[in-house]
Amino acid sequence: MRLISFLSDFGTSDTYVGQVKGAIATVAPEAVVVDLTHQVPAQDVRAGAFLLWTAVEAFPPGSVHLAVVDPGVGTARRAVAVRSARGDAFVGPDNGLLPMAVAKLGGAQAVIELTNTEFHRLSSSDTFHGRDLFGPVAAYLARGTDVELLGTEAGALASPYALPAPRKELDHWVGQVLHVDAYGNLVTSFTPDLLPPRFEVMVGDRRIRGGLAHSYQAVDTGELLAVVGSAGLLELSVRDGSAAMMLGLERDAPVVIRAFGA
Amino acid sequence: MRLISFLSDFGTSDTYVGQVKGAIATVAPEAVVVDLTHQVPAQDVRAGAFLLWTAVEAFPPGSVHLAVVDPGVGTARRAVAVRSARGDAFVGPDNGLLPMAVAKLGGAQAVIELTNTEFHRLSSSDTFHGRDLFGPVAAYLARGTDVELLGTEAGALASPYALPAPRKELDHWVGQVLHVDAYGNLVTSFTPDLLPPRFEVMVGDRRIRGGLAHSYQAVDTGELLAVVGSAGLLELSVRDGSAAMMLGLERDAPVVIRAFGA
Amino acid sequence: MRLISFLSDFGTSDTYVGQVKGAIATVAPEAVVVDLTHQVPAQDVRAGAFLLWTAVEAFPPGSVHLAVVDPGVGTARRAVAVRSARGDAFVGPDNGLLPMAVAKLGGAQAVIELTNTEFHRLSSSDTFHGRDLFGPVAAYLARGTDVELLGTEAGALASPYALPAPRKELDHWVGQVLHVDAYGNLVTSFTPDLLPPRFEVMVGDRRIRGGLAHSYQAVDTGELLAVVGSAGLLELSVRDGSAAMMLGLERDAPVVIRAFGA
Repeated sequence: MRLISFLSDFGTSDTYVGQVKGAIATVAPEAVVVDLTHQVPAQDVRAGAFLLWTAVEAFPPGSVHLAVVDPGVGTARRAVAVRSARGDAFVGPDNGLLPMAVAKLGGAQAVIELTNTEFHRLSSSDTFHGRDLFGPVAAYLARGTDVELLGTEAGALASPYALPAPRKELDHWVGQVLHVDAYGNLVTSFTPDLLPPRFEVMVGDRRIRGGLAHSYQAVDTGELLAVVGSAGLLELSVRDGSAAMMLGLERDAPVVIRAFGA
Repeated sequence: MRLISFLSDFGTSDTYVGQVKGAIATVAPEAVVVDLTHQVPAQDVRAGAFLLWTAVEAFPPGSVHLAVVDPGVGTARRAVAVRSARGDAFVGPDNGLLPMAVAKLGGAQAVIELTNTEFHRLSSSDTFHGRDLFGPVAAYLARGTDVELLGTEAGALASPYALPAPRKELDHWVGQVLHVDAYGNLVTSFTPDLLPPRFEVMVGDRRIRGGLAHSYQAVDTGELLAVVGSAGLLELSVRDGSAAMMLGLERDAPVVIRAFGA
Repeated sequence: MRLISFLSDFGTSDTYVGQVKGAIATVAPEAVVVDLTHQVPAQDVRAGAFLLWTAVEAFPPGSVHLAVVDPGVGTARRAVAVRSARGDAFVGPDNGLLPMAVAKLGGAQAVIELTNTEFHRLSSSDTFHGRDLFGPVAAYLARGTDVELLGTEAGALASPYALPAPRKELDHWVGQVLHVDAYGNLVTSFTPDLLPPRFEVMVGDRRIRGGLAHSYQAVDTGELLAVVGSAGLLELSVRDGSAAMMLGLERDAPVVIRAFGA
């Protein structure tokens, strides 16, 4: 039995997440479902794509990743399952939610549109494919059903979102904030290989000069620091505080890196 | 081993939910517990009854449904277990939380007051029957213990809440908002069989003319629509927005349906 | 396979909790993980220590308790595992998070610094020891690995926090609010053995005269009462309301008990 990870924008104050798990258990009573998060901002596919991307690598190869942020449920948008090079399966709407995470696990080996209704819930709705279609399909995948049996070849995934590479200017790089986490850390688009040995960061109206710190306590309380975070991206953080709050910044805020002394 | 679903008003910032699961695992280490929600508004039995009602049908027949919204814990209110016609078991306080969901699964075949203390936790409190009584009883039910062994026949459940049927007036029906979900969708008391072929909805100071939509994207961004939601009830929704916020409405707000052209 | 309980300050809007569970499943696919809470206020080790203390006793003896509130991740603070007298294992940073809960289960029989990297995740970060170190170690413990194999003897745990005993004055005791729960109940530092047969409580600008109630409904709606809560501590509560809101009190607020008629 393969593990199922589950990400959505359903929130946890309704029973939507529980209903999906009930539908999964109906197909695969032994399946283990691990919640990634259900607090993706409502219908924010791009945020969901980033959060899914942060999480899948930590799971055992061969896991099933169920992801549902689906403002177009009931429209012509396709429902798909994907097998990635690492051997994981992905299930969700073909609206841009999946490709970043699929790429992180080696890219797609097969993309199937979920047209075979024998793997769907008997009584289906137009409005809750998480429970009626994606959940049951994830359960069959967890039981070992081949992706290919779920429907028809679907060509490439729709890919409106990607990790934006920082842009090189004359003497600096311009990147951006990709995500603000619950601590108020600003996760940026800079990977460590882009960083000069000595550099400064300009963000909001502040400048961070110390280069890379190795812990969130490398500066005094209330001061900004730059650190490589758990996603392998440069993060801007305030010791014992929230960088997002202190700087008043949100997703997409520009972040500039300049080699120091250059 | 039968699946346990779990709904409460415990929230997730304390360890109450975890303590109940610890008590369950002490009795039934192999039991799988699926959270429905723990964010029922504090002590709002009626909201809990509705949310439980939305969820139980999606679970495999024979599941155990543990529900604890229990402002009267420690008073004379009865603690009960119920076997429904579908074969599911329900465990919780006899305060109106269970009957709607029991009815959805075919009604009660047995109602037992939980008087047999051999199925309770050894060290019990007056204030936390979720951990000390309901949780362990759910665990024994998951292991296959007969409902009848848990105590004495208890007659009918207390039933202060029910799904209110819309009221027919001369040329229209008056229903109400039963629930506002996390997206801001207004879940109403209208089932599709009550809807005329062509109809308009009056809600707050707005009128929705288009009849039934088949997806949340059937109108332009920011516009209202009516759709049959995942609970099989008419929902009023705003594309890419919150109907509750736009209309300033809450639970119990009136919703009027009129046949169109009548 | 031993059960793993899991407490952190990661919140549930990011995928951090899911990543830890993915890392656990990579080592121990059969392990069951039960969330205690992930809403410990960010970096509030003392709050985490109290919440962990409230929960561990309800778990089956021999459980593994994974706790991560770790502002010092990446600094010289030690990472530890502990075996308690009851047979449970604890895993987390040595910053005061664990000792109260360890004491509740009989005290420490072994304290080991987690220096043996063969039990850590292959690709480790400086900033996410929950995923890269504590989670995998908890998974090995769940599989039955001896605490002693995880590293080197570490002496006593750092213990900056403890349950503060109320202070006896001439004719009264002075305690404090230890925790405000999600209902707004004020959990105090008084154990029932400290309470005179008849007593009054002074808290904020109020006085509670009735002695111990046996349920949250022992008074009229909106009135204050004193009750022994689920943690075995005196709680101050408002029927159908929030004591914290009504009194405007937070953690550390003083609570005075005086024998009645004394």
